[in-house]
Amino acid sequence: MLIDLKETAKLLRDNDSILLLCHSHPDGDTLGSATALARALVQMGKKVAVRCGDKISSSFDFMFEGFENAELEPGFIVAIDIADTKLLGREFEGIYAQKIDLCIDHHGSNVLYAPKIWLEPESASTAEMIYMLLCEMGIEITPTMASCLFTGVATDTGCFRFSNTTVRTFEIASKLAALGADTYNIIQVFFETKTKTYAALEKLAIESMRFYCDERCAFICITQEMYRKSGSDESEVDRIANLPRQIEGVLVGVTMRELKDGSFKASVRTHGDIDASAICGRLGGGGHMGAAGCTLYGTKQQAINSLVKEIQAEIDFF
Amino acid sequence: MLIDLKETAKLLRDNDSILLLCHSHPDGDTLGSATALARALVQMGKKVAVRCGDKISSSFDFMFEGFENAELEPGFIVAIDIADTKLLGREFEGIYAQKIDLCIDHHGSNVLYAPKIWLEPESASTAEMIYMLLCEMGIEITPTMASCLFTGVATDTGCFRFSNTTVRTFEIASKLAALGADTYNIIQVFFETKTKTYAALEKLAIESMRFYCDERCAFICITQEMYRKSGSDESEVDRIANLPRQIEGVLVGVTMRELKDGSFKASVRTHGDIDASAICGRLGGGGHMGAAGCTLYGTKQQAINSLVKEIQAEIDFF
Repeated sequence: MLIDLKETAKLLRDNDSILLLCHSHPDGDTLGSATALARALVQMGKKVAVRCGDKISSSFDFMFEGFENAELEPGFIVAIDIADTKLLGREFEGIYAQKIDLCIDHHGSNVLYAPKIWLEPESASTAEMIYMLLCEMGIEITPTMASCLFTGVATDTGCFRFSNTTVRTFEIASKLAALGADTYNIIQVFFETKTKTYAALEKLAIESMRFYCDERCAFICITQEMYRKSGSDESEVDRIANLPRQIEGVLVGVTMRELKDGSFKASVRTHGDIDASAICGRLGGGGHMGAAGCTLYGTKQQAINSLVKEIQAEIDFF
Repeated sequence: MLIDLKETAKLLRDNDSILLLCHSHPDGDTLGSATALARALVQMGKKVAVRCGDKISSSFDFMFEGFENAELEPGFIVAIDIADTKLLGREFEGIYAQKIDLCIDHHGSNVLYAPKIWLEPESASTAEMIYMLLCEMGIEITPTMASCLFTGVATDTGCFRFSNTTVRTFEIASKLAALGADTYNIIQVFFETKTKTYAALEKLAIESMRFYCDERCAFICITQEMYRKSGSDESEVDRIANLPRQIEGVLVGVTMRELKDGSFKASVRTHGDIDASAICGRLGGGGHMGAAGCTLYGTKQQAINSLVKEIQAEIDFF
């Protein structure tokens, strides 16, 4: 059942022992939203834990600093920024898929798996929703909570560059800055710092760029060999996804990365009215209008061909 | 004489025929600030012209759309975002250097050449100051004026990524977004679009990166040959200036570009407490704490050596 902000606040108020779940391959939005909400719930006197079925990068350590992540027999389980129980990761899906009480999410592709769902597809990030929720619940937002939320707001909008960025996004960013979010350092860490291994991988990635669909579609393909050559790995690859779409005239940018099992994860980024989630949806994936993903099998060329076919169809549609 | 916001507003109110001057190599801040202020002055019933002694890129066309840039015998001349009359460009310097009545600027390196100066070095952009000025003067800020100002706010902060970005920057960005600034398209044009020639130049630039000062300083050098190879030119080179500083561990990033006369323009970007304007100041240039520039002569290696010496001194100082 879809519920709203006020009903979400009531559900949280009515429960005392709450587990917040993050999605696998965790990013700034799922972790920043969960840790800010967790700190708010602790402020309300509740027992809270945040769990993720995947390794968390050390760049998110500040979110957990000084926060007691309680051992917990949860009475209430909330999925944060998770569009599908598959995204819990295999182990956590087995444990939690059937036990989630509430889902708070902003993905239009949410499969509505939870008994109660607060879903705002027009929100650029789940962190924006959590900011509204904390205001509704009368929480005193500390600088650390503001930093957690700002990380979600900034990372899910590509630092205010994606088309999901709205007037509200800028307003919330300014409120969080005023509340003491460490905006400069957060942006430096997530957008303005490249490890040397990442810089080497990016160089190889740019060299691999190829064009399709009358140059309206650009592909980058990251292979396992590129990881070996650059000394980089999958943990650094997310930022490359924005590069192909930046080329003038390109409507659809694709970054494919070869997984160890030989399959390919594709990240699709689009401009304007081209629907990335429709393209990926037809290949078994999902996401947002401007940014979506899917997994492809077969050879690299087969993977490219099947995606190009769907992209061409989507471009032709407009 | 240094004056404040209210005195600036009074001076503008008291004059009827006003010329606004932009600096050469014009950017989003000098042009966005001047065109927004010009539109405000027109709203106040004044005769206004905006002039720049240099070619203006077509990406700024929207700022002048529907704005009547009057032929004018100016009674009052205002320099916008201009730290030194040298930056008017040779021709305009000859015409206007001695005739400027007021300077509105945010550069700490301003040489205080005008009889009246409203200077706010803590402001991330002159556009922020113009926003405050329009509020003070009771101007109705139209969507076009908001877009002009947002362009200045966004471009002078590297889209909110530079250390000059403050709480006020985010607040003004949110106000301008709410007033109808075309934030998404502005950011796409100035930050998320690369021409193919620029992408080719960027690739060559990244390949040219070299490290000095125990890897705490990274240099990129753009040569005339790179322009030939890539099909790009000087008009596209500004964005490269941020790349060297992005490498992890680098405190000072330098982008040098070879001019046609064989001299080199250096853009210096720093992290933390390293003062870019001190480094460039000792070589005859200037700018801000985090971003400054200077011109160097001699061979490429001599130019690099003289800069590295000043950078090493500045790093040692901390």
